[in-house]
Amino acid sequence: MNSTIKELKTQTDTSATGLFGKDFLLTWEKSLNNLETILTVAEDLKMLRDRNISPRCFDSGLAISQFRDNSTRTRFSFASAANLLGLAVQDLDEGKSQIAHGETVRETSAMISFLSDIIGIRDDMFLGAGNAYMREVGTALDEAFADGVLPQRPGIINLQCDIDHPTQSMADLLHLKTVFGSLENLKGKKIAMTWAYSPSYGKPLSVPQGIIGLMTRFGMQVDLAYPEGYGLIPDVVELAGKQAKESGGNFRVVNSMEDAFAGADIVYPKSWAPFHVMQQRTGLLRKNDHDGLKSLEKDCLANNARYKNWECTENHMKLTNEGKALYMHCLPADISDVSCKEGEVAATVFERYRVPLYKQAGFKPYIISAMMLTNRFEDPARLLGNLKHRWKSRVL
Amino acid sequence: MNSTIKELKTQTDTSATGLFGKDFLLTWEKSLNNLETILTVAEDLKMLRDRNISPRCFDSGLAISQFRDNSTRTRFSFASAANLLGLAVQDLDEGKSQIAHGETVRETSAMISFLSDIIGIRDDMFLGAGNAYMREVGTALDEAFADGVLPQRPGIINLQCDIDHPTQSMADLLHLKTVFGSLENLKGKKIAMTWAYSPSYGKPLSVPQGIIGLMTRFGMQVDLAYPEGYGLIPDVVELAGKQAKESGGNFRVVNSMEDAFAGADIVYPKSWAPFHVMQQRTGLLRKNDHDGLKSLEKDCLANNARYKNWECTENHMKLTNEGKALYMHCLPADISDVSCKEGEVAATVFERYRVPLYKQAGFKPYIISAMMLTNRFEDPARLLGNLKHRWKSRVL
Amino acid sequence: MNSTIKELKTQTDTSATGLFGKDFLLTWEKSLNNLETILTVAEDLKMLRDRNISPRCFDSGLAISQFRDNSTRTRFSFASAANLLGLAVQDLDEGKSQIAHGETVRETSAMISFLSDIIGIRDDMFLGAGNAYMREVGTALDEAFADGVLPQRPGIINLQCDIDHPTQSMADLLHLKTVFGSLENLKGKKIAMTWAYSPSYGKPLSVPQGIIGLMTRFGMQVDLAYPEGYGLIPDVVELAGKQAKESGGNFRVVNSMEDAFAGADIVYPKSWAPFHVMQQRTGLLRKNDHDGLKSLEKDCLANNARYKNWECTENHMKLTNEGKALYMHCLPADISDVSCKEGEVAATVFERYRVPLYKQAGFKPYIISAMMLTNRFEDPARLLGNLKHRWKSRVL
Repeated sequence: MNSTIKELKTQTDTSATGLFGKDFLLTWEKSLNNLETILTVAEDLKMLRDRNISPRCFDSGLAISQFRDNSTRTRFSFASAANLLGLAVQDLDEGKSQIAHGETVRETSAMISFLSDIIGIRDDMFLGAGNAYMREVGTALDEAFADGVLPQRPGIINLQCDIDHPTQSMADLLHLKTVFGSLENLKGKKIAMTWAYSPSYGKPLSVPQGIIGLMTRFGMQVDLAYPEGYGLIPDVVELAGKQAKESGGNFRVVNSMEDAFAGADIVYPKSWAPFHVMQQRTGLLRKNDHDGLKSLEKDCLANNARYKNWECTENHMKLTNEGKALYMHCLPADISDVSCKEGEVAATVFERYRVPLYKQAGFKPYIISAMMLTNRFEDPARLLGNLKHRWKSRVL
Repeated sequence: MNSTIKELKTQTDTSATGLFGKDFLLTWEKSLNNLETILTVAEDLKMLRDRNISPRCFDSGLAISQFRDNSTRTRFSFASAANLLGLAVQDLDEGKSQIAHGETVRETSAMISFLSDIIGIRDDMFLGAGNAYMREVGTALDEAFADGVLPQRPGIINLQCDIDHPTQSMADLLHLKTVFGSLENLKGKKIAMTWAYSPSYGKPLSVPQGIIGLMTRFGMQVDLAYPEGYGLIPDVVELAGKQAKESGGNFRVVNSMEDAFAGADIVYPKSWAPFHVMQQRTGLLRKNDHDGLKSLEKDCLANNARYKNWECTENHMKLTNEGKALYMHCLPADISDVSCKEGEVAATVFERYRVPLYKQAGFKPYIISAMMLTNRFEDPARLLGNLKHRWKSRVL
Repeated sequence: MNSTIKELKTQTDTSATGLFGKDFLLTWEKSLNNLETILTVAEDLKMLRDRNISPRCFDSGLAISQFRDNSTRTRFSFASAANLLGLAVQDLDEGKSQIAHGETVRETSAMISFLSDIIGIRDDMFLGAGNAYMREVGTALDEAFADGVLPQRPGIINLQCDIDHPTQSMADLLHLKTVFGSLENLKGKKIAMTWAYSPSYGKPLSVPQGIIGLMTRFGMQVDLAYPEGYGLIPDVVELAGKQAKESGGNFRVVNSMEDAFAGADIVYPKSWAPFHVMQQRTGLLRKNDHDGLKSLEKDCLANNARYKNWECTENHMKLTNEGKALYMHCLPADISDVSCKEGEVAATVFERYRVPLYKQAGFKPYIISAMMLTNRFEDPARLLGNLKHRWKSRVL
């Protein structure tokens, strides 16, 4: 406990710059110090909650959530994170609201923010739109605050966009830190972020992009593997290469699952739609071209079916380091013979890693809490010190 | 006030065993002591709230609600109960979530529980499925806790299933305790749980089953009455008979509303669908057989119509003890000439009992609170003592 | 700060009568003292929140919201207001509930109120129904409280009905008080509440009615302007005239936007449907006459189109006092060339007043909070004094 406080204190001088009052939209916009601060705060919050010590630091306040796509786990993670700190969740459900009737983003952003502390947004349907939308909201909030419309500028947390999924990748990183003992220990470890077959299509690119955009910063050997034609947003791939160099790690793109798995310490096999398909799909969605979408889906599923051998089987796992790579997934996974006939992962592999997978998911509420906390408090180490000093039971 | 504390203290030694950390799924799985503890805690919580003394015992925490069927009163009762203790409600709305897309119960159960204290579930659509689903969730939570995935094992509260409706029947019991002065006074009292005509079909069996499964434990004379063919789940009926014997009471099944009402101290006339119809309906629902469902509904309504004389009229009420039996209903009732042309109860009877009916319903939030509290606190008497000692105003 | 306390204290003796325990359904049912108390409490709450001082005065409690029409800003204002005082919001969503299945208003009103402090209702779809519905709920609550069903009588806040929109008009009034320095300064000021063209139809009458029903009480020169045939509910218009006389102000109905704008200090151009159209629409809605509704919409839109020149342009603004009238709108506005081709207001006018418009909207959460607070606390001045004395930070 004391060590985590100490650790945090060391980081705080630099970290405050990039987190306090700053939106969390892409991990690669944050310094390494920032990211380490998030992890440490998340660990501290988890430690407190596990001991039923209240980390509540808001007497009242709202955390707004805006989900433009379905979600169970992120929705619950966000609600848990807000509640842990004392914020009430208010959902901006476009089905219920007038947004669909022509309100501008600028206006709505101000209208929901008069007494809000945090706005969490999930918008991953359109390539080129989700992250841009978040920035548009951010600009509107900046203006409204500068104009004296808002008493404070709420912080935005990206709950998944077209480019990145930072609450996922940071939870994944905390999982890795926990399993391997430290961030330092991740240096030189090989992680295989690979495409995997799924009988569905249109899955967002944000998870693989988030993983290569984050893990290349910690000196890891990052392999991105996919069948030809299943590439990601080129800019993110380029960034991953650059970051790997800077961190003393390595980044490769290969077209073989086996190559990527060979000697890997960590594997993350997961389906996604090819970048160019997502581009076409975005165009069709914008035009409401249902026939075009159906036809694209048909073609894409047919193409997917050529790569059913991209399944994380026991044989694939044997290729990894001592056959014992850590299997990761953002969940839910398409498990062969369980959730579908043929899918991303063999049932036996999934079963063997069920507990670590659930633990991986369990870090997300704390990561989101840490993002909220560092956005609102200039000196998180001091706040956590106070919380620990207070040592107030969460239950009577 | 002191008497309730004292009463509670006497019970606590034994009650902790069956309530603390245990799901509340069926009243007949709980000891008499357990049930009396729930009633006493509910009374204490109501006493505190009526005096605007805060019984808040959570600084933060989530109560998850999952309603697989529409509900106003149970939803509000659950929300009120959670709020009273300091928990925030988070709804697991399957319409909003990915559950419909193949997530397993096991996974979802863990994913919603990382920071949750209580999970309330209503699942009464399918015979053989609702209670079983709750147990499946329970097993998943046990595993996740044992595996270190969850820092604590959230408690499950049955908000209505295919077999029992314990929050309803316990609220009903608290109403009876209040009206008759004590549980002791219920001994020998006659309660008529009877079918009644309604112009709808498919109403769950959980209320009549809950009533005969609970009231037979208190030495009452329980009559279950329905037209031939409108039976309940046989196991529950058998259980009721056994329990009546053990408690020194009596249990009869009759096919005449008049027989059941004769000399009754309490009457509970309410429509339900026959067991065998619910079985067929479950099969058709599972097969998504819309034509079969329509045809079943038609037959069932036609059959119902043969029993329009099963209405709780003034003449029926005159048959009861001094003509003054307590009329009960879980609400909403089908009131003849009010909510429908011909229904479960005559308007004059309903009107005369409106106030007691509303009071009956008003116990439900406290029963749910008591179930939450006893699930999370090992020594509810001590906690309530502390709350009373604290005597903190709910409003400034 | 001290001045607002002092101001409030002076008013309290009389104000308690009309606010404490009384529903807020129409501004003209409240005394001038009542209205001033609401404004002052709202200002105080805003002052506290802007300084991050917690005005929380409930340890637990529920604020029920019932929206029978879509809403973003009122929904968020209500949620913010409740949260600020420590109440949790529970939504009565008729889609989710059994209300649609024949439950009476009386019963539902009691069922949702066992542990509730405030009920906010928006019901503006049917002429003659919205406000009446709120009163029906109020009567049901009175009865339930008198009968001992409820431990307290929750207060009702009108979040918009067919007649008035008091949270809007009071927020507007607070905006005017702020801009002009005091209520006293509003005497003799000219406000033009005018119809404006919009490419939609069926907009409620509650905003213009709320404005003329409130502003005529403060000695203002109130002009109501609309094209022939676009009149409001006659009773409200008559009331406005009477009130204007009593307050030493003036009230005129004119059929020229230019006449109304001439020399105005404040302009409020906004579309609404003619009274007689709303009457027809209500009849058709009740009969579920879709063809009739379509035909009415078509006729009405065609008629609207004859008045496209009723747009708040720069030329119109030049007619006002020194060309600098304060432009107001309840938002969202139909902005020409922005949200529609031709609408209520020119883009340049709207843009110039964006910041004041957002500030106007920003008063609503505090107005609602003040309505909640004065409904539940007999001596708001004393409560606010205590809150200021406590001076508890909202964040740790």
